[in-house]
Amino acid sequence: MAQIKRKAVPAADVVGGVTPHVDVATLGRQLLGRWADIRLASRALAANPDMQGVLGLSKDEHRERVLGQLKLLVKNGQVKLAFPAEFGGLADHGGNLAAFEELVAADPSMQIKSGVQWGLFGAAIMHLGTAEHHKRWLADAMSLKLPGIYAMTETGHGSDVAAIGTTAEYDPATQEFVINTPFRAAWKDYLGNAALHGQAAVVFAQLITNDVNYGVHAFFVPVRTPKGNFLPGIGGEDDGLKGGLNGIDNGRLHFDHVRIPRTNLLNRYGDVAEDGTYSSPIASPGRRFFTMLGTLVQGRVSLDGAAINAAKMGLQIAVTYGNQRRQFAGDSGEETVLLDYQRHQRRLIPRIATAYAQAFAHELLLQKFHAVFSGEEDTDDARQDLETLAAALKPLSTWNALDTLQEAREACGGQGFLAENRLVGLRADLDIYVTFEGDNNVLLQLVAKRLLNDVSDTFREAGPAALAKLALENAVDRTLTSSGLQRLGQTVVDLGATSRSVENLRQSDMQRALLTERVEQMVMSIAAALRHAKKEGRVAAAFNEHQSALIEAAIAHGELLQWEAFTAALDEVHDPDTHIVLTWLRDLFGFGLIEKHAAWYLMSSRLSSHRAMAVTAYIDRLIARLRPHAQDLVDAFGYGPEHLRAPIASGEEADRQDEARAYFADPSRRFPPKESVATKPKAKKPAAE
Amino acid sequence: MAQIKRKAVPAADVVGGVTPHVDVATLGRQLLGRWADIRLASRALAANPDMQGVLGLSKDEHRERVLGQLKLLVKNGQVKLAFPAEFGGLADHGGNLAAFEELVAADPSMQIKSGVQWGLFGAAIMHLGTAEHHKRWLADAMSLKLPGIYAMTETGHGSDVAAIGTTAEYDPATQEFVINTPFRAAWKDYLGNAALHGQAAVVFAQLITNDVNYGVHAFFVPVRTPKGNFLPGIGGEDDGLKGGLNGIDNGRLHFDHVRIPRTNLLNRYGDVAEDGTYSSPIASPGRRFFTMLGTLVQGRVSLDGAAINAAKMGLQIAVTYGNQRRQFAGDSGEETVLLDYQRHQRRLIPRIATAYAQAFAHELLLQKFHAVFSGEEDTDDARQDLETLAAALKPLSTWNALDTLQEAREACGGQGFLAENRLVGLRADLDIYVTFEGDNNVLLQLVAKRLLNDVSDTFREAGPAALAKLALENAVDRTLTSSGLQRLGQTVVDLGATSRSVENLRQSDMQRALLTERVEQMVMSIAAALRHAKKEGRVAAAFNEHQSALIEAAIAHGELLQWEAFTAALDEVHDPDTHIVLTWLRDLFGFGLIEKHAAWYLMSSRLSSHRAMAVTAYIDRLIARLRPHAQDLVDAFGYGPEHLRAPIASGEEADRQDEARAYFADPSRRFPPKESVATKPKAKKPAAE
Repeated sequence: MAQIKRKAVPAADVVGGVTPHVDVATLGRQLLGRWADIRLASRALAANPDMQGVLGLSKDEHRERVLGQLKLLVKNGQVKLAFPAEFGGLADHGGNLAAFEELVAADPSMQIKSGVQWGLFGAAIMHLGTAEHHKRWLADAMSLKLPGIYAMTETGHGSDVAAIGTTAEYDPATQEFVINTPFRAAWKDYLGNAALHGQAAVVFAQLITNDVNYGVHAFFVPVRTPKGNFLPGIGGEDDGLKGGLNGIDNGRLHFDHVRIPRTNLLNRYGDVAEDGTYSSPIASPGRRFFTMLGTLVQGRVSLDGAAINAAKMGLQIAVTYGNQRRQFAGDSGEETVLLDYQRHQRRLIPRIATAYAQAFAHELLLQKFHAVFSGEEDTDDARQDLETLAAALKPLSTWNALDTLQEAREACGGQGFLAENRLVGLRADLDIYVTFEGDNNVLLQLVAKRLLNDVSDTFREAGPAALAKLALENAVDRTLTSSGLQRLGQTVVDLGATSRSVENLRQSDMQRALLTERVEQMVMSIAAALRHAKKEGRVAAAFNEHQSALIEAAIAHGELLQWEAFTAALDEVHDPDTHIVLTWLRDLFGFGLIEKHAAWYLMSSRLSSHRAMAVTAYIDRLIARLRPHAQDLVDAFGYGPEHLRAPIASGEEADRQDEARAYFADPSRRFPPKESVATKPKAKKPAAE
Repeated sequence: MAQIKRKAVPAADVVGGVTPHVDVATLGRQLLGRWADIRLASRALAANPDMQGVLGLSKDEHRERVLGQLKLLVKNGQVKLAFPAEFGGLADHGGNLAAFEELVAADPSMQIKSGVQWGLFGAAIMHLGTAEHHKRWLADAMSLKLPGIYAMTETGHGSDVAAIGTTAEYDPATQEFVINTPFRAAWKDYLGNAALHGQAAVVFAQLITNDVNYGVHAFFVPVRTPKGNFLPGIGGEDDGLKGGLNGIDNGRLHFDHVRIPRTNLLNRYGDVAEDGTYSSPIASPGRRFFTMLGTLVQGRVSLDGAAINAAKMGLQIAVTYGNQRRQFAGDSGEETVLLDYQRHQRRLIPRIATAYAQAFAHELLLQKFHAVFSGEEDTDDARQDLETLAAALKPLSTWNALDTLQEAREACGGQGFLAENRLVGLRADLDIYVTFEGDNNVLLQLVAKRLLNDVSDTFREAGPAALAKLALENAVDRTLTSSGLQRLGQTVVDLGATSRSVENLRQSDMQRALLTERVEQMVMSIAAALRHAKKEGRVAAAFNEHQSALIEAAIAHGELLQWEAFTAALDEVHDPDTHIVLTWLRDLFGFGLIEKHAAWYLMSSRLSSHRAMAVTAYIDRLIARLRPHAQDLVDAFGYGPEHLRAPIASGEEADRQDEARAYFADPSRRFPPKESVATKPKAKKPAAE
């Protein structure tokens, strides 16, 4: 990558007489986390041009290319990470997702299609099926000999999976299930691999036997011949062009009384005997349902990571360009580098802080995921924590990726709009991340419910008088922050060395207190407002009246978790200079949250007007301090030109600027003076002055 | 369009015992504004499938199609609106932009390419050239016999046009200008028509004669043969694939000492005699520069209108779908319509209010534009007001279009991501609107400078003591709001009947006071902070230290203008019911702004905590009141299925829902009961509960 010209660090930012110097390599390694080597191997794969997207392909060409890339993934052995040793796998659950997350740098279409094949289709056979199913289909799913479809969502039901319309009715006479689509809204829809390549589908349907509906179960249903023709009774449509991810053949499927053998029910959590008797190791239908959907958390965890990686790439591109591109002369007459503009700094530097916070939070999420899925910590509580954590973090990171990529694109002006500079393509591909694998607004409501449950558990123990007291006094309940990361973060903190200065601790404690109190108070107020709804038989209505507040509380919770993760990560930063800079960055993240929610802090009397203004002034100072480190901080993300593949971040802009400046500086060039320079105003395109 | 099922209006929203009923047709006519008939004719044209975009075309096919559509525009006579009668034109300046704005419904690529040909290339010949130029090129530009390029922007200079590197040096020996590109950053870039179709370019270059640089002037330069080959000395590149607008052949051009006749200088505002003597009717180089760039305001005005139209279409699609699609059972067991969810309402209904405010503000902007360009009110002051107004409104509407289209896409879930439902395509095409024809952040700084000038004019009259007093006392200066719309708005108010109730007036005055004081106070504080910078020779540096605050002040000013326009438009609403509903909508817009900036109001003691909380509570009430009218309010935008062309807004979702509900309601269908219904929890995809 091109050398970046640095600005001298202003005196105010010098600590102990020395300008802090970020140790980019070590920081980069920390950002890679526990599965650093696997990530680096996956990035090396993503650097292979054969694995990368190509601009200007038609939908059909792109789909064909991506299918070929999946075969390369098989060849490369990447697929093994996800599957057990008996099928030649490595069963490294965290490593598998880490590797997956890095593929976003090559082509999100390839990445997501691999997720469909192995993370959904293959994973469903593995987690919902039993030994016989594994023997019959897993090897072929892994080798891509059997391209598969995960047929859960229907046109009429996305988030509400329990209400899907597809039926699977058992016929004891032939010992078959009859898969049927009763109406148009029950067509399976948006399914990757369904338009073209999928030959079998794991179909989610209402299991009906002996005149009882046992709810949603998964069935293995062959849908196409190897030559690509639909099997009898099966039909479908291509979803056609999408806003992004056009290398994936999303499509629709419908079933007209398609018969499959009884043994095609993936029967780990529910089975039907030859005579039609239903049995399940999980008595509660609700718990059974959630257990069967449990593998979906894998998708959320990995989308969280992939979205953060895409945001990092956007920042690395925009900051590199912003450090080279010049526009408008400053007081000296020399043109100003974009990143020296205050507004440009405000647009990009706080987003670097967010990327760090989200990256550190994701690492803890991934470790939690690994602990649960590897069996190290596979308890009900741990699973619930994992689900809540993923549901809190995935919405924030996927929305943030769109926001960051868009700001990066705008910060690069017309260059940002050219497809060759990657920003628009990444944004288009990641658009769907905010509503698939759990719509962000739906996920956040689940987080809010969990927070409410934690509160009501406390209330139940304390009794109704205590509830009223708590609600009235705005008292805080410490159990809340135990939902999810806080517990994890605490562990990490306990392990790490505390090199934070007293000064920083003070700030850090103040930030924590403000962020924590906000979550607690928001949840408490809603809990108080909702507490009679159940008795009155209007739970849904009461919930709806506070739906926005619930979602805001869940967002606040997620932000707190990210802040905690960033703070915990500081203890792992052993280089003193880097520690100083990263602490500024964490403070920027924390104070940025407080500034964003300043109205709330003011209204709840947690901040005086004076102090709220001080927060903004401090943010200005932090951004100015961090400005000279912006390039280091994005370079630590570690993407090379082979990943960014954006000409504007390749150094070509610096070359252009150097050439232009040399031209004007060369006395042998005859460039005449301007007419009456003194009266010439600073000119901008718009004519108002 | 499909019939929308309405919810009964809750009792609280009944006024005088009667539910208000929006007169959609009359409201729709009001929204169409002064050029209603021209807009309807242009919408009729946009309804012609030949004029519309087709999904899945390759870049090359799309470009070819758009070129053909431009020929249809010529045939249709749409082009005539922009040009003078002597060339067969109609010279209806406002009407021309109104017609242009409506073409966004057909295909933004076609729209913007027509803007390049007639709004930039043709307009430059007309406004910067003189009679001889008009005679030589205007008819061919109008008929598209001569496809043209507006070659202003360079790779190295976008917003800072005055600093472009291309030179045009006069050679008296041959009476020619030599057009030259001295270095790579001076290549012309992002030019529509440059990659393929353009045969001539209006090239902006530094005019050098007799060893003096007279600054940027425009030159007519033939660049390609009719067969599409570059003329000698001219080279270029295709900008390739972009984030949107791929029907336009954007490209780069460079010139290697290309000689053109002296008379190819578009010499209305600056000329070179045979002997090389420079002359200009405008003595000040700065004013000359801005005059030459003055026609660019046309682009900003029309982008403002087009962006608002795109946002309206997004809202009409998302609200229609949100009124039909159901998900998750409510307390009654029946599935809830999306728009009955509080969060869904919060996501869409305030954006309807913004669309109305922006539409009314745009109408006033367009009238102002027409007054200036038709010569009715062509004074320096009026031009400056127009420039400022356009610079204030275009950033807000173009950003809002992206925000609204994205929220609409997310509100429609997976359906929103399908290209057939239009939302992703419109968003992709409009992305560049926020940085082209004046980067939004640059435009807002111009607005802020104008506001500062207004303040300093007042200060100059009042003397330095008054300045200090004003700044200290937070006193308000009423001249500020005279920048732009306020003056216009006032006129409209004076003309209209005031049917507002005393109650509403009170609210209205309170909103106005809060919004106005914020602009004034923000500008005043910056003015106070900047007042020594000039003496200290650090104007640029001081400006940069307040750059973010300046931009925020300009945004606040633009928001105030929109609020004023909405308020003025209420006086034109003569149907009492519609007036009630629109007043709620205006209040939602106004209180929404106050809520957004609540921290500022709290910190400056303009709102107490109690009152700030009341604002939020009132917004909740307003949204609930407006919910039953959401469909009417978006239907009044007046787009038919031939414009929206989104299957999800066609009524097909209502059909699907009806079919599914009928299926479950039909007692003859055998759908067995669920296992142990009592214990079954409300199920969502994520497994945390």
